[in-house]
Amino acid sequence: AAYSQHKQNKAEMKEIIQLKNYMAEPITPISELEKNQDDMKTQMELLIMRIQAEFCRALEKEEDEESKFKVDRWKRKEGGGGITCVLQDGRVFEKAGVNISVVSGILPPPAVQQMKTRGKNFENKELPFFAAGVSAVIHPRNPMVPTIHFNYRYFEVQDKNEVHWWFGGGTDLTPYYLNEEDAVHFHRTLKQACDEHDPTYYDKFKKWCDDYFFISHRGERRGVGGIFFDDVDYPDQQSAFKFVTSCAEAVIPSYIPLVQKHADAGYGYHERQWQLLRRGRYVEFNLIYDRGTKFGLHTPGARYESILMSLPLNAKWEYMHDPKPNSPEEKLMKVLKEPRDWLNVQQAKSTST
Amino acid sequence: AAYSQHKQNKAEMKEIIQLKNYMAEPITPISELEKNQDDMKTQMELLIMRIQAEFCRALEKEEDEESKFKVDRWKRKEGGGGITCVLQDGRVFEKAGVNISVVSGILPPPAVQQMKTRGKNFENKELPFFAAGVSAVIHPRNPMVPTIHFNYRYFEVQDKNEVHWWFGGGTDLTPYYLNEEDAVHFHRTLKQACDEHDPTYYDKFKKWCDDYFFISHRGERRGVGGIFFDDVDYPDQQSAFKFVTSCAEAVIPSYIPLVQKHADAGYGYHERQWQLLRRGRYVEFNLIYDRGTKFGLHTPGARYESILMSLPLNAKWEYMHDPKPNSPEEKLMKVLKEPRDWLNVQQAKSTST
Repeated sequence: AAYSQHKQNKAEMKEIIQLKNYMAEPITPISELEKNQDDMKTQMELLIMRIQAEFCRALEKEEDEESKFKVDRWKRKEGGGGITCVLQDGRVFEKAGVNISVVSGILPPPAVQQMKTRGKNFENKELPFFAAGVSAVIHPRNPMVPTIHFNYRYFEVQDKNEVHWWFGGGTDLTPYYLNEEDAVHFHRTLKQACDEHDPTYYDKFKKWCDDYFFISHRGERRGVGGIFFDDVDYPDQQSAFKFVTSCAEAVIPSYIPLVQKHADAGYGYHERQWQLLRRGRYVEFNLIYDRGTKFGLHTPGARYESILMSLPLNAKWEYMHDPKPNSPEEKLMKVLKEPRDWLNVQQAKSTST
Repeated sequence: AAYSQHKQNKAEMKEIIQLKNYMAEPITPISELEKNQDDMKTQMELLIMRIQAEFCRALEKEEDEESKFKVDRWKRKEGGGGITCVLQDGRVFEKAGVNISVVSGILPPPAVQQMKTRGKNFENKELPFFAAGVSAVIHPRNPMVPTIHFNYRYFEVQDKNEVHWWFGGGTDLTPYYLNEEDAVHFHRTLKQACDEHDPTYYDKFKKWCDDYFFISHRGERRGVGGIFFDDVDYPDQQSAFKFVTSCAEAVIPSYIPLVQKHADAGYGYHERQWQLLRRGRYVEFNLIYDRGTKFGLHTPGARYESILMSLPLNAKWEYMHDPKPNSPEEKLMKVLKEPRDWLNVQQAKSTST
């Protein structure tokens, strides 16, 4: 069902923009989107609108009839806005948030600093920027269903003589109980999306993911990983956009089958308590280490409700909790402490050389 | 029951050190404490040991017979250690943590940076330090009983030609439902402790507390404040130590009466849910803004279980939760958004001039 966002034909463009299944009206006025339909800013805004709507609909299908996403379209005084969709207290999903934002303004100084340490050579001090992204965190109720997070974003910074642009993003899975088949299915789906574009991407971005989602004070990862990347400005803008499109389109096939498989699995008090403890770790990662969250919260005029929608409905902290030896909980911890090569990419590599 | 920590008499010193009501053996070997009994490092270690034990015993008195503090004495590879006392899942206290630590080593670079921005003029790059402190966070089960936090600490940094030393600390209250009498009692008790030492302290440190415990992304304070100070190296070491001693001794009379007053108050599902949401805000403050927590977690060899014992057993995040107009929840929010002058210090000031 992948269709190109890039339509030469004006009539087709109109149809895309007015599709009834978006969650709300685009942030950028439709007349402007129509005028600048070849601009990457337009293409990205339309992509994230579509991904948001498709994912929300896919999640609602797994829910009871009465559980629907609540849609908030918001504007930011400093420029742009977003559409935040949240489903709370459903039968299947305890808290599901799917957010898009399309914002512009002047980069805050800490953001400039952070980008410079990543190798961006900016000349000007005042740097106008544009950012469009979709991000989602889904916390299911059943501890046998993993949490998923994804985020895909496009950045433009206007410097003295040039426009810097890049894509970033990723999709990662946080199970409460390890199911190896799930992890393999998840990684395989992401690898297929990567492989269409570059055979080296999956391996590289899988490692990046394991490194990024690291709760360093505990020496453990948030989950079983996935892919993560930033500063993708290669090989060219259209190709990079197509790669990001493939990744974003892989979210549903990577995750919804896992929801369907486990949503009715049996569990008890013990499993629920463990899930709540792991959700506490999720909160630790997001509030202490996550770049997006820290950045968001320190940006003037940030909509904190949208940034913090990633936090679980419930979380727990117990002093010195330690899973029993050889328990299913300990099995998960081992993988969080030592990430696995789910698709045997490294093994395949060394065999072929 | 305040007795001087500073004993000229060796026999008396021995008695103090071996008091049976400490929670565990001191971190510094007893022979060293005896040898250096006039050293502020020794005096502070004995103070925090005593404060920890007195506070733990006072809390246990409010609890059911079977709920006692679990005591962990730990050593830090890099130098020093601590004693962590935690009472979890009691009838009155859902989670209560009282921690002391006595550590030494070389200051990590971000710590040096942070201290320099606070005006410390260090000459050397490698700076050996010593830090001793007590800190506690008590999360009661009943939403009508407020949470209390306090922390008192002593720092020494060995520079080229001098030893920099200072005290820091504070005590603050986080109610879930505002009881104005409680807030006044709490502030009055702290003010009395301050007034014994300097009539300007309470006013200054009360404001500092309101500024420090600010969740800036939400524009609200964590609670109804108290006192907070840092870099107290005046008027002289003994006087500063006595001031800190008074503050630490004021914790029990400021808080225990509030526990006794409300521990059996009636409440229902609604009040519990509100308490859990506010505990989510507590987590936000501690993980995003609290200097001690950030510092601790970024210090090599940090004991994260002791640092994170401040987090509540349970917390909750709801998207766009807004208290109803004129509800008791909204009444609390008003005070968190606009701190009050509980003892009419400002009014008294302007009347007298």
